[in-house]
Amino acid sequence: MTARPARGRRPGDPAVTRRAVLEGARATFAEAGYERATIRAIASAAGVDPSLVHHYFGTKEELFVAAHELPLSPADALAALADDEGTLGERVTRAYLSAALTEGGPFESLVRAAMTNPTARTMLRRFIERGMLDGLAPYLGTPDARLRLILAGSHLIGLFMARQVLGVDALRRADPEQLVRVVGPTIDRYLTGELDPVG
Amino acid sequence: MTARPARGRRPGDPAVTRRAVLEGARATFAEAGYERATIRAIASAAGVDPSLVHHYFGTKEELFVAAHELPLSPADALAALADDEGTLGERVTRAYLSAALTEGGPFESLVRAAMTNPTARTMLRRFIERGMLDGLAPYLGTPDARLRLILAGSHLIGLFMARQVLGVDALRRADPEQLVRVVGPTIDRYLTGELDPVG
Repeated sequence: MTARPARGRRPGDPAVTRRAVLEGARATFAEAGYERATIRAIASAAGVDPSLVHHYFGTKEELFVAAHELPLSPADALAALADDEGTLGERVTRAYLSAALTEGGPFESLVRAAMTNPTARTMLRRFIERGMLDGLAPYLGTPDARLRLILAGSHLIGLFMARQVLGVDALRRADPEQLVRVVGPTIDRYLTGELDPVG
Repeated sequence: MTARPARGRRPGDPAVTRRAVLEGARATFAEAGYERATIRAIASAAGVDPSLVHHYFGTKEELFVAAHELPLSPADALAALADDEGTLGERVTRAYLSAALTEGGPFESLVRAAMTNPTARTMLRRFIERGMLDGLAPYLGTPDARLRLILAGSHLIGLFMARQVLGVDALRRADPEQLVRVVGPTIDRYLTGELDPVG
């Protein structure tokens, strides 16, 4: 017989508890960074006992991986763009900004953690190389497709860094639709435009 | 009378010691990140006694600031570009890549640290807003100059992140001059091209 947890919510529906822990983990990793995020702080953010965090997710590293699965399928991503307005570049930029510029989302947490933690860095690189480059290259169908995609992707990552992580004023003040209009043509050129012979 | 330091190089020329500590600090901050870098590890990388690090630079935070002064003057930066080949965008891209893609340089250390440490983040934002945006905006001379500059700058930061920090294969394999040719036109457009009305 185990004692009732000393603090936090009483364990109930496992699915609810797991979801609360994952949300608490993402918020804590994003705010404190991987190194400083403790299981105790994550449990407190989730309103559960720390023993439950270990019970459901194991180590901090395992919890981090579980909290940052980015299950983007290229087909889903393209389908989501199909109904939107504007050029392909504008649609890509708009979709990215609305996902990435959400404060405290999994993308923000993962990017911050990737700066200092090798596990997070490997996850993010793998997500970019496999999910994004390998997954989307066939849709472009050119020999330089992976380079085209990473040029577009690195520009969008840079916008995220400058606006969201660093908080540079000139970008924070810019309206997202304004950014879509000025950045969209760059993304169009990288994805489908004329480039100097590459690759 | 003080005892000779237990380990490390014997204190000699203060200028030599200070330089060694600054180099050791940049290398250690870049490799371990701000949080995990210890004065002891920095002293060891510099080959001096930890007490000398404290003596010359005070706290870890003070040492970090001293190690990451980015004394870029806009006039110097523009002068350095003047003799180079290609369009303005190509010259900017080439200069940035040769500075930023140097492994273990102050830029890499600062960007990594900025992800998790508020002091480093404030330093990098201040460098971008004051050094880059305020310093260079008068040379563009348009009302939207600061937004134009940060669009160009954030693209270059993103390239650095994807290539140097994450190590995405498609960018690591690209030749720097190839990147100059494909990215240069984007930088030209942001700096001096036609943009949808902004600002």
